[in-house]
Amino acid sequence: MDHSRFPVIEVFGPTVQGEGMVIGQKTMFIRMAGCDYRCSWCDSAFTWDGSGKADIRMLSAAEIVDELRTIAGDTFSHVTVSGGNPALLPRLGELISLLHASGTAVALETQGSIWQEWFLDIDELTLSPKPPSSGMTTDWSVLDVIVDGLTDERRSFSLKVVVFDEADLAYARSIHHRYTATPFYLQAGNGDVREQDGNLLLHMLLDKYKWLVEQVMSSAEFKNVRVLPQLHAWLWGNKRGY
Amino acid sequence: MDHSRFPVIEVFGPTVQGEGMVIGQKTMFIRMAGCDYRCSWCDSAFTWDGSGKADIRMLSAAEIVDELRTIAGDTFSHVTVSGGNPALLPRLGELISLLHASGTAVALETQGSIWQEWFLDIDELTLSPKPPSSGMTTDWSVLDVIVDGLTDERRSFSLKVVVFDEADLAYARSIHHRYTATPFYLQAGNGDVREQDGNLLLHMLLDKYKWLVEQVMSSAEFKNVRVLPQLHAWLWGNKRGY
Repeated sequence: MDHSRFPVIEVFGPTVQGEGMVIGQKTMFIRMAGCDYRCSWCDSAFTWDGSGKADIRMLSAAEIVDELRTIAGDTFSHVTVSGGNPALLPRLGELISLLHASGTAVALETQGSIWQEWFLDIDELTLSPKPPSSGMTTDWSVLDVIVDGLTDERRSFSLKVVVFDEADLAYARSIHHRYTATPFYLQAGNGDVREQDGNLLLHMLLDKYKWLVEQVMSSAEFKNVRVLPQLHAWLWGNKRGY
Repeated sequence: MDHSRFPVIEVFGPTVQGEGMVIGQKTMFIRMAGCDYRCSWCDSAFTWDGSGKADIRMLSAAEIVDELRTIAGDTFSHVTVSGGNPALLPRLGELISLLHASGTAVALETQGSIWQEWFLDIDELTLSPKPPSSGMTTDWSVLDVIVDGLTDERRSFSLKVVVFDEADLAYARSIHHRYTATPFYLQAGNGDVREQDGNLLLHMLLDKYKWLVEQVMSSAEFKNVRVLPQLHAWLWGNKRGY
């Protein structure tokens, strides 16, 4: 019996998944600390910049599942593992198996910088490679391996690119062109993850989303794509724990 | 060769699908006139109350496909057929075949009051039975036949219930309980389809959505469900043609 421990920084929910391929899904969130990226606009920088260090607890899979039940009782059957980058955790398969054993579906989001065998066990896997505005560089050879591996195994996964500006949009086009058979999501970026005025933020987010919709609608290079906002930011602003 | 004609009242796009199982999808809309229902809060009452009569054109499948290309050129590969209730059209399969022949996917929404064989050819079919606030009554025997037929053929479809109040929520519970294996969407209703002040409407819609999210999150009877708003109403208010 394995007893790996995972660096859990937040457990919350149930709430709605605000973005991507399972947008609107009632889900619990487990947020893991640690990331191999340092995106300029990261909305969860506390997972890697040291500011959330005191919140990190090293929990076993069983302890995590217990905590989910303590918090949410019998109100959920879906869990989202987020980060940070949970793909840094080679033994996360233990948690996924335990969740599946209790009839809980598992979604996960990662940037696609690291492959893990347990990707094949995720029910809805979102690969979110980072555009130029993030300041990060995509390792295409790794992303190729991940997309090919998931495609070959006919897994339910999608690509999602956050777009802030024209350069990001060009990056999104190159991703969609390279992996044209993979379900593709464009997401309007949150231009100010520190804004505390909910109404100001809401209108900023709406404008950004409208702009992205207009760009994609007029383009023949984006056809079979989805364009989405981050619903949780529209609803709850930049608050943590939603 | 068939040359059925269909009562087209609007063709527009590309725009984003604002709701349901393909929320965010870049799509063209074809809206058909005529409905067997008269929902109290219908946001497209012009399709059946006589007010849009002058806009109805009887078009063949080929004419519809031509018009899509005239309007949108090569910018789309997905079409949504809406209404009214397009299930009133027994020969709609001709249009679906022609769209598929040009590599275009077809989504369709209907209330589930009438079965058509061509339901099996729709790529994403949304069944949206109407809750008490609509003033309509569900014929459960028909809905059973439709859900069973689509389930047996393993088609991609979902159930979606618009919720305005507690009674609607109870109706949504009964739908989800009856068809528990079918992907289930709850949608926050648009409480005022005539409000022209975009900002006022936006905050009304946000409040309605938040209320619905809270109801569903705390309930053990809703687990594997999705809760969504109507993005198009958030973006463009009650304007037609979006």
